[in-house]
Amino acid sequence: MTTQEQLTAVKAAKPALAAAGTEQKNQALLAMADALLADAAPILAANQEDLDAARGTISEVMLDRLALNQARLEGMAEGMRQVAALPDPVGKVMARVERPNGIVVEKTAVPMGVVAIIYESRPNVTSDAAALAVKSGNACVLRCGKEAHRSAAAITAALRKGLAAAGLPADGVCLIEDTTRASSLALMTAVGYVDLLIPRGGAGLIRACVEQAKVPCIQTGTGICHVYVDAAADQAMALNIIENAKTSRPSVCNAEEVCLVHRAIAGEFLPKLRQRLVDDQIAKGRHPVELRLDERAAAIIPGTPAGPEDFDTEFLDYILAVKVVDSVDEAIAHIAAHSTGHSEAIVTADEAAARAFTTRVDSAAVYVNVSTRFTDGGEFGLGCEMGISTQKLHARGPMGLAELCSYKFIVHGNGQVR
Amino acid sequence: MTTQEQLTAVKAAKPALAAAGTEQKNQALLAMADALLADAAPILAANQEDLDAARGTISEVMLDRLALNQARLEGMAEGMRQVAALPDPVGKVMARVERPNGIVVEKTAVPMGVVAIIYESRPNVTSDAAALAVKSGNACVLRCGKEAHRSAAAITAALRKGLAAAGLPADGVCLIEDTTRASSLALMTAVGYVDLLIPRGGAGLIRACVEQAKVPCIQTGTGICHVYVDAAADQAMALNIIENAKTSRPSVCNAEEVCLVHRAIAGEFLPKLRQRLVDDQIAKGRHPVELRLDERAAAIIPGTPAGPEDFDTEFLDYILAVKVVDSVDEAIAHIAAHSTGHSEAIVTADEAAARAFTTRVDSAAVYVNVSTRFTDGGEFGLGCEMGISTQKLHARGPMGLAELCSYKFIVHGNGQVR
Repeated sequence: MTTQEQLTAVKAAKPALAAAGTEQKNQALLAMADALLADAAPILAANQEDLDAARGTISEVMLDRLALNQARLEGMAEGMRQVAALPDPVGKVMARVERPNGIVVEKTAVPMGVVAIIYESRPNVTSDAAALAVKSGNACVLRCGKEAHRSAAAITAALRKGLAAAGLPADGVCLIEDTTRASSLALMTAVGYVDLLIPRGGAGLIRACVEQAKVPCIQTGTGICHVYVDAAADQAMALNIIENAKTSRPSVCNAEEVCLVHRAIAGEFLPKLRQRLVDDQIAKGRHPVELRLDERAAAIIPGTPAGPEDFDTEFLDYILAVKVVDSVDEAIAHIAAHSTGHSEAIVTADEAAARAFTTRVDSAAVYVNVSTRFTDGGEFGLGCEMGISTQKLHARGPMGLAELCSYKFIVHGNGQVR
Repeated sequence: MTTQEQLTAVKAAKPALAAAGTEQKNQALLAMADALLADAAPILAANQEDLDAARGTISEVMLDRLALNQARLEGMAEGMRQVAALPDPVGKVMARVERPNGIVVEKTAVPMGVVAIIYESRPNVTSDAAALAVKSGNACVLRCGKEAHRSAAAITAALRKGLAAAGLPADGVCLIEDTTRASSLALMTAVGYVDLLIPRGGAGLIRACVEQAKVPCIQTGTGICHVYVDAAADQAMALNIIENAKTSRPSVCNAEEVCLVHRAIAGEFLPKLRQRLVDDQIAKGRHPVELRLDERAAAIIPGTPAGPEDFDTEFLDYILAVKVVDSVDEAIAHIAAHSTGHSEAIVTADEAAARAFTTRVDSAAVYVNVSTRFTDGGEFGLGCEMGISTQKLHARGPMGLAELCSYKFIVHGNGQVR
């Protein structure tokens, strides 16, 4: 089918998904999970074809992201069952007011309609995204990178069987067949068909969406995250937080990329930082962190001299840019100039500094004495996550089921006129 | 100043507005109201120049919208004082969770940053919009139609004095000097400067924003609103509601444009509708409504034959398109195909029909036995209104102070790592 035909099909499925009750949606999710496991053989075979085709053309890390096995499939099915167990966001009365004239106004959560997700080479996003869309009463249209397309097609075929088994239209979950750039552009410009577009991928994809999207779109995921070590920091705590934020999973968007250190403690702290991130890592047989140092930091510890671009780069690697600042104000100003608005942390025992930081840093998540790695729907208690928004319109930070909904005002009366 | 210079100035004022406390913002609003009245002479003189220049080039209705006098200025000042009296939306903790690991996550309302408003020839929007922006901790940049530009400039000069008197930067409220289309386009594409763009104007402006905006934007105001008279309607109530929705103020976006009537009552109801909207209006010396009838309605009462475009037109005039439908399902389907998603009403005593309508009609406001004219921030208890969103992302329906805010997650802990 052409992309336009697929968009027409998913739009036609929208009312049935929106009208489905909690029980029916949960039954659909459980049936989708079952279908995923029942179709394990064709899904794993399709995945093997994807892997064979991709080998040699993409990195080992990307190959690992692409690979499925029985355990990963079971994890995907379990994820869908967990979404079934979450509260239904649809129909929630967010505010209710009875006016003096007797009209009753209820601000009520409703599905967005059709949610489009553009993603790259992780086949598990197929079932994760579909589950969150169905639970929130949305039809969804998925556009997967070509490396994972055979896997995603096999997964989608299973999910559609599950939807149909619960009496919902199979077209409530569609995978775009065209894997060329034309189909991404078609989704970005599908005014009247796509109610919400969520790009999940690298900076290039996000930028393309910001530049070209004519449908409502959420920017996700790019994270140049900062940890600022204040003059009043507990330095042992700061070392633990930075080691965690930088090295526990460098490839994710909530990993730290830049460390700012107050000049009053830089002479004492930076050698400890180098010890922890370089020498200790090597001693433990782990990957050391390359430190890219501004001039003042380089006067204290050895490391790579930082170029200006090092403070505007999402390394997603064992690299940390380090800068000495004169004050919490300078730290805040640096973050305002260089952050992507994802996650920033201050380590300090000074409440005034903490308050200045949380008030004035304009990012989705702002931490006091906590690692930036907690920016995650599960860690924030949302139960799930469709992505992490770095914009301020509609949703900011981890997006759960509530953020896949809009609302409408339902007004009851007995003949009121104005 | 060039538009870019003005954008740079307003961006520089953003942190001071965002950090201002409730007391300071309220003082600023009261000082802005006082300054408006203190500057009545230059404002009214500038308005007279606008009126002199516009006379003959725009309609009488538009001239009336453009005109200011002492009473209208006092109304504008009073509006600002009322905004000062509203609760501060900034800093509100919308959700708080303490996680098992001890971190405390607070989802906290914060200003959007810089709000841009593009509007046409109502000078009072200048003070209304500035008041709502300041109260919600936002800097604002205003771009007014050229007919009202002298008035808006004089009003803005007064407002800036008020801001400065309260210790806030005058650049927190800027009026774009360039009145050519170039400045509108500059605002739509001011990525990094404008955090939220609200176009308030006709369908052409809204379409231009949807097509061209690269900054987050809210579609406002276009209303092709429907009233559906069900088979189980109280017909006297339906007549009252339709007369109100159509004739009380035909030029506004929440006025009715289309009436759908169930075939079971059409033979009885349509003659009464004609009596009420045509004959009774004439008898009262009021403007009669032109009825544009589909074939089935035209077989029952006299009127203008409707062309297909009549069901897709925001008349903003004493014109009503009328169509006979077979069922509530057909009414819902017609609305899905032709509505702009603003406001729709059902008149019925049948609870199942009402539920079908409120559940399945996908518009910002859905009414049961109430006139569509209530779609308004004041009528919904929000205390004020920046515009009425017809989109589903971020804000839907009347936008109050809360909708001029985003949020961030503020997380406190004592060294937690993941």
